[in-house]
Amino acid sequence: MTTELHLEDLMVGQLFTSGSHAVTVEAIKAFARQFDPQPFHLDEAAAAQSFFGGLAASGWHTAAITMKLLVESGMRLAGGLIGAGGELTWPQATRPGDVLTVVSEVLAVTPSRSRPERGFVTVKCETRNQRGEAVQVMTSRMLVWRRKS
Amino acid sequence: MTTELHLEDLMVGQLFTSGSHAVTVEAIKAFARQFDPQPFHLDEAAAAQSFFGGLAASGWHTAAITMKLLVESGMRLAGGLIGAGGELTWPQATRPGDVLTVVSEVLAVTPSRSRPERGFVTVKCETRNQRGEAVQVMTSRMLVWRRKS
Repeated sequence: MTTELHLEDLMVGQLFTSGSHAVTVEAIKAFARQFDPQPFHLDEAAAAQSFFGGLAASGWHTAAITMKLLVESGMRLAGGLIGAGGELTWPQATRPGDVLTVVSEVLAVTPSRSRPERGFVTVKCETRNQRGEAVQVMTSRMLVWRRKS
Repeated sequence: MTTELHLEDLMVGQLFTSGSHAVTVEAIKAFARQFDPQPFHLDEAAAAQSFFGGLAASGWHTAAITMKLLVESGMRLAGGLIGAGGELTWPQATRPGDVLTVVSEVLAVTPSRSRPERGFVTVKCETRNQRGEAVQVMTSRMLVWRRKS
């Protein structure tokens, strides 16, 4: 069991690498049916004729898998991973059979001015497939607590 | 059936309002079990003691529901909704019983310089609960096709 991290434990440049998650055709279609019912996420033949040229996972599915990897095996913050928001891009689509891993890098650690017990950490989380190619790059601001003294 | 929109049909300031989607306790927990297994998304008692002060949906669940509303009843782009990425914030959590609606506003319409058949539209999508409060604000850049002449 890893110790939970507080504001004082975080430093710019720290890296965290998650476990991995394999993405199946069935999972891509199940997510799409529920949240992103577009032909290129649901049907191989339609996807082949689309912009994607083949079945592709919803970007929101990639985002959700990224969160799962972060929660289960990423940076372990005391109090949990609570995001205020961020920026994300999908440089390429997640495909059936891809195995995803998330590499997180601390970009900034900012104590709160108004609330001494908390702060924010800015983290760049790159979700990579089995070839090391980025399928999502997300920079997010997360709430982090100061160690009780 | 609404006509599908092309680059030429889009103008800065256009507004699109989606249908609505009710968020249940069961759906919040099911999404969390699969993608964001943290106590404040899974268990009422643990959530009451957390930052959220009660059960809250994962931000990624709010994002996924937003996508569902956009696909089913939002801005209808020819070729589908294909996002390149964007920025998002969660001003407050989605809660059990919330009924969400997405209001989308076109912020920019940009023809591609290198590829005459396509362009990008920048859209601000505000996901609101039944009290009109924003639970997610997302500004995203989406691919849009020019009408074949």
